[in-house]
Amino acid sequence: MLLALGLVLLASQPASADEPAKPSTPRTMADVIAASKPADWRPLDPDNTLYLDLAAGRVVMELAPAFAPLHAANIKTMVHEHYFDGLAILRVQDNFVTQWGDPDSDKPEKARVLGKAAKTVAAEFERASGGDWPFAFTSLADGDVYAPEVGFVNGMPAARDTKAGKAWLAHCYGMVGAGRDIGEETGSGAELYVVIGQAPRQLDRNIAVVGRVVQGMELLASLPRGTGPLGFYEKPEQRLPIKSVRLAADVPAAERTNLEIMRTETATFAALVESRRNRRDDWYKVPAGKIDLCNVPIPTRPIAATAKP
Amino acid sequence: MLLALGLVLLASQPASADEPAKPSTPRTMADVIAASKPADWRPLDPDNTLYLDLAAGRVVMELAPAFAPLHAANIKTMVHEHYFDGLAILRVQDNFVTQWGDPDSDKPEKARVLGKAAKTVAAEFERASGGDWPFAFTSLADGDVYAPEVGFVNGMPAARDTKAGKAWLAHCYGMVGAGRDIGEETGSGAELYVVIGQAPRQLDRNIAVVGRVVQGMELLASLPRGTGPLGFYEKPEQRLPIKSVRLAADVPAAERTNLEIMRTETATFAALVESRRNRRDDWYKVPAGKIDLCNVPIPTRPIAATAKP
Repeated sequence: MLLALGLVLLASQPASADEPAKPSTPRTMADVIAASKPADWRPLDPDNTLYLDLAAGRVVMELAPAFAPLHAANIKTMVHEHYFDGLAILRVQDNFVTQWGDPDSDKPEKARVLGKAAKTVAAEFERASGGDWPFAFTSLADGDVYAPEVGFVNGMPAARDTKAGKAWLAHCYGMVGAGRDIGEETGSGAELYVVIGQAPRQLDRNIAVVGRVVQGMELLASLPRGTGPLGFYEKPEQRLPIKSVRLAADVPAAERTNLEIMRTETATFAALVESRRNRRDDWYKVPAGKIDLCNVPIPTRPIAATAKP
Repeated sequence: MLLALGLVLLASQPASADEPAKPSTPRTMADVIAASKPADWRPLDPDNTLYLDLAAGRVVMELAPAFAPLHAANIKTMVHEHYFDGLAILRVQDNFVTQWGDPDSDKPEKARVLGKAAKTVAAEFERASGGDWPFAFTSLADGDVYAPEVGFVNGMPAARDTKAGKAWLAHCYGMVGAGRDIGEETGSGAELYVVIGQAPRQLDRNIAVVGRVVQGMELLASLPRGTGPLGFYEKPEQRLPIKSVRLAADVPAAERTNLEIMRTETATFAALVESRRNRRDDWYKVPAGKIDLCNVPIPTRPIAATAKP
């Protein structure tokens, strides 16, 4: 069969015979990753990582407390209380979102009890871009349709408006948000969604983005689409059960999924962005010259056995 | 449950009691569609429409002969010869493409015979933007990361560079392209792919875009992801059989899927774009102010029974 679209994302690309390898000027993303150093990566923090376990496998999510501290803390409280265990994926809307939570949340007599978690927390749609900002904002120079400036903050796609003094996470593929009702402060993290299609950037600054799926997106993106309004499943038996959602720190070491993520504030990541902005492999005839924020991959990989303590 | 993300795409939105309906200034997409006139829509041309029939249902694709005439003609030749019937979906790469064709195309003794269709046709990655241009290019004023100008041509997202005198179709969600090997002219239309994730605009001008899925995308986007390189299925039994691909004109009238598409060169479509650029429903707190080319929906609907001849 034709390979077509020859994006061999993680295969190494040998240099041709008449062109010796130049480690200092990597050409493809595989080259950049192969030439990266341990300091270009950071392990996921077990206190900031969720495992959403389904029958088909595990989805690993990193929380974003720098942007949504109240939501992140509330979700962790829920997870400690096993709030999500036995709940379900309720909605899959094509080219938009997959959403999970309590199918009975609007039936007081049947709804799962939130325990110590808050029923609603304050809106966390954006945050101050200056002052106590804990992380570098690595700008992407390619421009953006929606925001005056976009880039990456600690491994997550973000935007900012320095005139307004605000920064926010961007709704790219794999970003996780906290569903809310009409009121701004009606979200709690008890109902979460993940983007499974073209980045719905119109949601930016309208809802709390609480994190990002770093592994297992295919488990959430390949589900049957719901046929009800907004892609909700119409019959209870169509819902996909959630085995559990756990904080990595609460999971025995042997059962953890140990991953590391490329640091987005490094020169290596800048080289990776360039390798994707202008593809160098033989398949491409016209390099794009630019790259959209949501087209930049943020590499994640298992932590090598030798790197473990 | 929380509806969250309240995008009631096709429900009508009644005007409130103290605010009479103003048909001339529609607010939501539903309002725009409700206020549209028959002339704002065009029926799909049966001579330019393909039905990809799967066990789970039908995918309807519109070809783009204005941009890829050789590919469109070659695909129609193949379809007339039942080339695709009994072939399969071979590849589903998460956040990228679903691809179908002949699993044995690289085995001369087993490959499906192409008959009167060409094995390769000339590259049709872009076309002249002036001169014999048959359709209006309706510009989108919101800007674009990848191209100097973007907009819509006869119901398809497109880009152009008037300085270079070139126009091309844009790789948005649902766009269909003809897979090729390393050589520019190695595509034929015998292996097709559709975009199922964030628009891979880096493919623009590197491959022939031959059309767009106008109905049934969920059937192609919700498939299990392949676990082989590039998302190819590793085992033959994982492939999804194609029942048939037929030209609508070759299908008895009673078996056709009669659809109409909003004309993208109309004032109604401009109003629709604005309704999506700045959402007016109560859920949104901050209108985006801009919209990305690939976030603009191109409405498709069944042709009303009363509109039939």
